[in-house]
Amino acid sequence: MLKSSVRIFAPATISNVGPGFDLMGFALEQPGDIMIVKTNDTGLIRIINNTSSDIPLDPDKNVASVSVFALLEALGCTTGFDLIFETKINPGSGIGSSAASCTAAVVGVNELLNRPFTQKELLPFAMKGEFIASGSVHADNVAPALLGGFILIRDYNPIDIVRLEAPHDLICTVAHPNIQIKTSESRKLIPKELSVKKALEQCGNIAGLMAGLTTSDYALIGRSLHDVIAEPVRAALIPGYNEIKARLSETGALGGNISGSGPSVFALSDNPESARKAGVLMNDVFTKAGLDSKVYISKVSRQGTRLID
Amino acid sequence: MLKSSVRIFAPATISNVGPGFDLMGFALEQPGDIMIVKTNDTGLIRIINNTSSDIPLDPDKNVASVSVFALLEALGCTTGFDLIFETKINPGSGIGSSAASCTAAVVGVNELLNRPFTQKELLPFAMKGEFIASGSVHADNVAPALLGGFILIRDYNPIDIVRLEAPHDLICTVAHPNIQIKTSESRKLIPKELSVKKALEQCGNIAGLMAGLTTSDYALIGRSLHDVIAEPVRAALIPGYNEIKARLSETGALGGNISGSGPSVFALSDNPESARKAGVLMNDVFTKAGLDSKVYISKVSRQGTRLID
Repeated sequence: MLKSSVRIFAPATISNVGPGFDLMGFALEQPGDIMIVKTNDTGLIRIINNTSSDIPLDPDKNVASVSVFALLEALGCTTGFDLIFETKINPGSGIGSSAASCTAAVVGVNELLNRPFTQKELLPFAMKGEFIASGSVHADNVAPALLGGFILIRDYNPIDIVRLEAPHDLICTVAHPNIQIKTSESRKLIPKELSVKKALEQCGNIAGLMAGLTTSDYALIGRSLHDVIAEPVRAALIPGYNEIKARLSETGALGGNISGSGPSVFALSDNPESARKAGVLMNDVFTKAGLDSKVYISKVSRQGTRLID
Repeated sequence: MLKSSVRIFAPATISNVGPGFDLMGFALEQPGDIMIVKTNDTGLIRIINNTSSDIPLDPDKNVASVSVFALLEALGCTTGFDLIFETKINPGSGIGSSAASCTAAVVGVNELLNRPFTQKELLPFAMKGEFIASGSVHADNVAPALLGGFILIRDYNPIDIVRLEAPHDLICTVAHPNIQIKTSESRKLIPKELSVKKALEQCGNIAGLMAGLTTSDYALIGRSLHDVIAEPVRAALIPGYNEIKARLSETGALGGNISGSGPSVFALSDNPESARKAGVLMNDVFTKAGLDSKVYISKVSRQGTRLID
């Protein structure tokens, strides 16, 4: 007998990861979305919002239902589903809020349909939803939200996902200042061309980051967390960012960068004390800049979107 | 009592390694340079060429002696040395001929001076020699020639060398067609700017290559061996290159690219049979293009420049 209702957890994610601009992301243990997915007998996809976040109720404009439409279309399936948002990562916070909605919905629907797809095969459907949030095809939040761990999208055409286990003691500090940056707006600021010299800096750093992650070389991870493409232009949209980045070494954190397109800022540490100090620093600098901020400290998660009871 | 003469082996190296343009290189077990380094009582650096290769005898123009000058200057040392070239990798073949001369000389002199420097500390001196060969500061041949294994130069300013052990069963096929391409000339063809889209392709591939090397994911290594910066312009200088690249999958090789600035071409394989077939393919295509070629098949080496008896 098939289940008619499941409860799903989808983790927040940090995309870009410095030199991994558009190509990398990783999952956090917390925060995350909780979504209940239920079959209904209307044949419609209905959005029910039990959170205080502002979520589009029109299924054609909601990233979760758009992802589900893509999945159902691939199957030629006409079953209806209720997507009930119970807990929502703050939209616009730059820690993969839309990605979590997309992956929670497709994992829930896939489960209720008795798993016609593997977890990895759900990625293209979640990317369809993510597209309407960001205005561009990218997987650097949806892939880690779906699969957990550290993700490299080696190529988009065809998509080639490389999943790495994160080192066990890698802890992420995220601070979300109380301003909104729309991904689609922020993306327009990125230049279309760059010098080969800059491109090689980016290549050196993403390669260093990969080597650091796979060999648990924490100092190398820290030295590699620089982005020459998006960071310089996006930093200007986040009051206090440059001070946080410059002073991060005082906390013992390995390094940090902008989470996604911002405004959240993240740091990676190899011990809880540094992770905590990084959070205090971020909060202090944002306060000085006149901004409230919310700090999350979480281990990097090896788990992606999954059923919970 | 200090030694007055040492015999040194310095391995051939493959630099660039596809997406690792200007940032990566690895050492081969064979071929390599053999150099005898001897103290002399003249206070001069003298070049003695016992090979059939054309090697500058003027110490101000020879990469080996220029490297030694830099080392001696750092020490304020006035000892004279003879640098006796016994076996020489073909100059201009694109497998690190000048780099091997540089590292053989500095390792030999360092040994005769009772090792004032660690092996890694010799790198800047060898780079000084390499500079006069290529007209640019780069370490993607000298670093693997010196240290062995797979090398990433994460950053040049200050220099940050990451050394990876290569997977044990990685075999390199190199074919050197009988044409010369000067590194300094070839470098002028590289564009100064590129699109962010292309830069991200390069980033995805170098990150994939690093992940493949560190996790022994051979298929990933193969998928990642593409270079959007130098390969397109340099390919045009190597008759048959595009055919070799396109047909490499027929041999079972993982993938391949141009070695250094060419004209040599390399392929990586995870078994001797594919490595051999790749060599046959390269030789056949070059023959069809009217070029003699010399094929080398060698394991990737974890050893760099070293004393031999």
